[in-house]
Amino acid sequence: MPKTRKTVAKSRPDPQKRAGRAPGRKTARRDTEIMALKLRPARLSPSMAAFFKLCEEKQGFVPNVLKAFSFDMAKLEAFVAYRNDLMLGGSRLSMLEREMIATAVSAQNHCFYCLTVHGAAVRNLSGDPVLGEMMAMNYRAARLSKRQRAMLDFAIKLTAEPWGIEESDRARLRGAGFSDRDIWDIAAVASFYNMTNRLASATDMRPNEEYHGLARSTK
Amino acid sequence: MPKTRKTVAKSRPDPQKRAGRAPGRKTARRDTEIMALKLRPARLSPSMAAFFKLCEEKQGFVPNVLKAFSFDMAKLEAFVAYRNDLMLGGSRLSMLEREMIATAVSAQNHCFYCLTVHGAAVRNLSGDPVLGEMMAMNYRAARLSKRQRAMLDFAIKLTAEPWGIEESDRARLRGAGFSDRDIWDIAAVASFYNMTNRLASATDMRPNEEYHGLARSTK
Amino acid sequence: MPKTRKTVAKSRPDPQKRAGRAPGRKTARRDTEIMALKLRPARLSPSMAAFFKLCEEKQGFVPNVLKAFSFDMAKLEAFVAYRNDLMLGGSRLSMLEREMIATAVSAQNHCFYCLTVHGAAVRNLSGDPVLGEMMAMNYRAARLSKRQRAMLDFAIKLTAEPWGIEESDRARLRGAGFSDRDIWDIAAVASFYNMTNRLASATDMRPNEEYHGLARSTK
Amino acid sequence: MPKTRKTVAKSRPDPQKRAGRAPGRKTARRDTEIMALKLRPARLSPSMAAFFKLCEEKQGFVPNVLKAFSFDMAKLEAFVAYRNDLMLGGSRLSMLEREMIATAVSAQNHCFYCLTVHGAAVRNLSGDPVLGEMMAMNYRAARLSKRQRAMLDFAIKLTAEPWGIEESDRARLRGAGFSDRDIWDIAAVASFYNMTNRLASATDMRPNEEYHGLARSTK
Amino acid sequence: MPKTRKTVAKSRPDPQKRAGRAPGRKTARRDTEIMALKLRPARLSPSMAAFFKLCEEKQGFVPNVLKAFSFDMAKLEAFVAYRNDLMLGGSRLSMLEREMIATAVSAQNHCFYCLTVHGAAVRNLSGDPVLGEMMAMNYRAARLSKRQRAMLDFAIKLTAEPWGIEESDRARLRGAGFSDRDIWDIAAVASFYNMTNRLASATDMRPNEEYHGLARSTK
Amino acid sequence: MPKTRKTVAKSRPDPQKRAGRAPGRKTARRDTEIMALKLRPARLSPSMAAFFKLCEEKQGFVPNVLKAFSFDMAKLEAFVAYRNDLMLGGSRLSMLEREMIATAVSAQNHCFYCLTVHGAAVRNLSGDPVLGEMMAMNYRAARLSKRQRAMLDFAIKLTAEPWGIEESDRARLRGAGFSDRDIWDIAAVASFYNMTNRLASATDMRPNEEYHGLARSTK
Repeated sequence: MPKTRKTVAKSRPDPQKRAGRAPGRKTARRDTEIMALKLRPARLSPSMAAFFKLCEEKQGFVPNVLKAFSFDMAKLEAFVAYRNDLMLGGSRLSMLEREMIATAVSAQNHCFYCLTVHGAAVRNLSGDPVLGEMMAMNYRAARLSKRQRAMLDFAIKLTAEPWGIEESDRARLRGAGFSDRDIWDIAAVASFYNMTNRLASATDMRPNEEYHGLARSTK
Repeated sequence: MPKTRKTVAKSRPDPQKRAGRAPGRKTARRDTEIMALKLRPARLSPSMAAFFKLCEEKQGFVPNVLKAFSFDMAKLEAFVAYRNDLMLGGSRLSMLEREMIATAVSAQNHCFYCLTVHGAAVRNLSGDPVLGEMMAMNYRAARLSKRQRAMLDFAIKLTAEPWGIEESDRARLRGAGFSDRDIWDIAAVASFYNMTNRLASATDMRPNEEYHGLARSTK
Repeated sequence: MPKTRKTVAKSRPDPQKRAGRAPGRKTARRDTEIMALKLRPARLSPSMAAFFKLCEEKQGFVPNVLKAFSFDMAKLEAFVAYRNDLMLGGSRLSMLEREMIATAVSAQNHCFYCLTVHGAAVRNLSGDPVLGEMMAMNYRAARLSKRQRAMLDFAIKLTAEPWGIEESDRARLRGAGFSDRDIWDIAAVASFYNMTNRLASATDMRPNEEYHGLARSTK
Repeated sequence: MPKTRKTVAKSRPDPQKRAGRAPGRKTARRDTEIMALKLRPARLSPSMAAFFKLCEEKQGFVPNVLKAFSFDMAKLEAFVAYRNDLMLGGSRLSMLEREMIATAVSAQNHCFYCLTVHGAAVRNLSGDPVLGEMMAMNYRAARLSKRQRAMLDFAIKLTAEPWGIEESDRARLRGAGFSDRDIWDIAAVASFYNMTNRLASATDMRPNEEYHGLARSTK
Repeated sequence: MPKTRKTVAKSRPDPQKRAGRAPGRKTARRDTEIMALKLRPARLSPSMAAFFKLCEEKQGFVPNVLKAFSFDMAKLEAFVAYRNDLMLGGSRLSMLEREMIATAVSAQNHCFYCLTVHGAAVRNLSGDPVLGEMMAMNYRAARLSKRQRAMLDFAIKLTAEPWGIEESDRARLRGAGFSDRDIWDIAAVASFYNMTNRLASATDMRPNEEYHGLARSTK
Repeated sequence: MPKTRKTVAKSRPDPQKRAGRAPGRKTARRDTEIMALKLRPARLSPSMAAFFKLCEEKQGFVPNVLKAFSFDMAKLEAFVAYRNDLMLGGSRLSMLEREMIATAVSAQNHCFYCLTVHGAAVRNLSGDPVLGEMMAMNYRAARLSKRQRAMLDFAIKLTAEPWGIEESDRARLRGAGFSDRDIWDIAAVASFYNMTNRLASATDMRPNEEYHGLARSTK
């Protein structure tokens, strides 16, 4: 999706050829399939056609999650509107911080699609490939500021045992410098990826191959 | 159960008196507060003002989740659009079935707000107050059709261990008569309440009191 | 929430009609059966006949758990004696507090029978229907005194990870004003419902329908 | 295992000396205390005095759980009545099988008191010291009949996730030759030790030292 | 506990008779088999032949884990070298402390082989049979020094949730008097038994019968 | 470690410079430290000096786990001997398959060090960068042969609940074509990484930076 900077993935190796020799792969399902459900794409609405075009221009491809939603324009438009407001809209959380939450939550839920996509976004936005790996493997390994550590601890507790969140958890966030609005934003981002992780896992959604090589070298 | 004749509780301080005045309640936070975050409501956009008015007319009140989102019209509108498409839009899942998923997922996540709201919706749409209780307490206690049982088993596995969903899980849904589009809908509803459960828990959202007494008697 | 104006659900089969006649119920097993095990009731002993008569007079019905035990008078009498001493006998825990523990423990164990019965008891003894719902959904949502919160935290830890209870847990109870005898009572009540939850789940015990509507309106 | 010739431990402080005098014990609490709660023993009722005398004669000591309950004769009598009916009363489960359930459940709950007492009972009733160890360590290691394995699998599932017990679990017991009454007995024994495990853990109950050496050699 | 006078079990099939001859054992697999995998023993290398001879002399038998590894001399020698350095080599942890860690870790993993072997080692090295039982049942029941309690808490957290170990966990060990080298040793021992527990469970390894009766009486 | 093919990491960016600008990093601990324990390196034995030289020549660097063990030559040599026999010695499991097990186990344990090292090894040995990501994120997302899927399912069950492994688990491996020796090898590799994962987590071991960029493009 747009608004990431400087992301171009021109030189992707032919995935068809690769899959051919790859050890351990079954060929029963084609790698070009984006999920395990067969849903016929609808005709893109004008606003979604424009958005897909923007994705192609900025990123070089349309993220598969958008193609997965394309069987129904009302659903696609609602998803894009909610996601873009959350991840790109005004917030005191930086876009990198929002992607750090997305990746750490996805690691808790072992979601292949979202770890691939948001790990890449962390690498890209931070210019620090190792930070992306840490978020995807175990965020506790990263040497974070007290602020960012509190943010991720809240997001992971909310993911793993939402019933246990209490005033003391919010108090810890306030003590790390977060306002009530910031707490909403942390909660909203962590909650959203608990939704998308599950939608991706339920449908065996496959990330675009381009993400894997993205932003692997230090800027 | 009443006391047996031989059981007398002489030395106990009078529990009736202690019970008299809502003994377990602290008054530090007013019950009219809808969540633990203080976010100033924005001015309602025309479409949201109309929607709130509709809620008042049809239900007699505006659900607190909508008031919680009202600090930001873009967020409120995106949430309402996504939610209404999902829960009221076209689907081969009945509205009752969607509310059954919402309630069973909320039980897994022990979410007070969502159990209150969606348990009431199940009671209301089914005309069966006990069905609402079963969904909120343990959906396995309900005597469901094979179809509905498969639907809820999928929703709960997706909630509890999303990383473990595989083709065999989707195959079981297909075997119970669900199409690929139905599987999307089941997944999308279960995933959405994994989001809202967490947003409600993170903010200590409180349900409108009206829900508790709703549809308690058999139609 | 009502529909927004733009949301129309044309292609959906009429959910109202489907909802009309308790759609989720199978009729294979009669609702009047009280558990999944077929055990022939024995002749009530004189003391148990008197106790059942007392139940009818005071509550209007005999709780199904008593009928379930009625295949053997020695077992029924032992259960009633243990239960009545525990829940009605002398204690510095009020009867409401004992029912709060029973309900919170049953929520941890997702026991349909016990949540129904003891949630009703909390509503009835407190005159606060919402307190009953909170105990059954997530006791952490209730605004409790420090004393009652410590009591329930101990009961739930004892339920979920009994191996982890240590002197520090008892110390917290003492710090909240509980004596050693009170700690015994909290432990004994929490432990007892860990027994009955399992007996009810093992036998698919069904609560009397009367509980569901009991004490639903504020006194 | 002894040391290999090349392994020398020169710089280590002498472990033999450190091991000499029960190094891991604190003396703050006397080992003769039977639990962490100080509750003054009441005067034994005639029936309980007779029962304690019987224990002394048959076993050589009064089990500490009985002493723990002795602060209140009503509680002690109710506990003894319930326990003796369950573990010694008529049942198609042998007393050994009931003790096997008690031990396996206590292993799941890591209860020091109950593992000590019921592990000894399994050793004693079976004349097979290794069977007692297996029940206390991991019942899956024992080479059991299909019947006994089904019995313990049910007991452990009921202990670990009581909410998940369903008709298929009861059907497996029936398939292994158990009647509905037998299923009640299995459930009742497993449930009872889920109670006593927690009461013992909550009070840090200590088993009589005599149990540890009991029935250690093969008959 | 003996029966109360009023408890009679007339209709019960004679449990004594049923218990008589190790009722729970199947004879399909011979007890002399040391694991579920059939791997032909290789010829012992000279150093391993000498080591086995030493085991016979000192302990009276060759531990089955060594026989299990004997299908391949390179594997056997590497295992013995690693194990002996770890458990017998120089360290400020006493051999008893290392065996306490081994046993507590094995209890967390419910490993029948390792609980048998290392529980015996704790009994033997400490001269305190009850300490061995506590390590195997629930180490929290033992009255340990602050030092040993911190050591075991670290080992168990490392076993149960290794991803959650952080600087604060190491700091607690330092606060209990452990050096960085000691922390390595605690971690290395706990980690090693997480390996052997799994190798024993994967192969259904059976401990030599001699361990069960070892060091059962107080020195 | 040696025997990976064609691995050269010449052009590593200066980590010092990078850490300087990296968002979210604390500078309290230098990135060149390889673990949280300060243990003075011992003088390398001749065999270990030769092995370190080999690592430099083949891989371009000495893996940090070897440096971490270098405070004690006996420990280092024992670790290298055990590890090299296991991962490089004769087996019907390919080196790639052994690395797939190592990575999937490390994902279950969320071990940053081992995921980095073994994810790189899977990418390198397979020439398939996405396969490495799948093993590190959720092995269930990979389209594996029945053989490899059975192998990883066994390894992960052995990691997550070793107490539950039974004959039926081994039977499934045999059904997928594995011999008893193969089962040993699968178990031994999975068990070993349950050891190293914990040693790395206990000491906060940091992987060499070179791994992150290794084998990221398709061969």
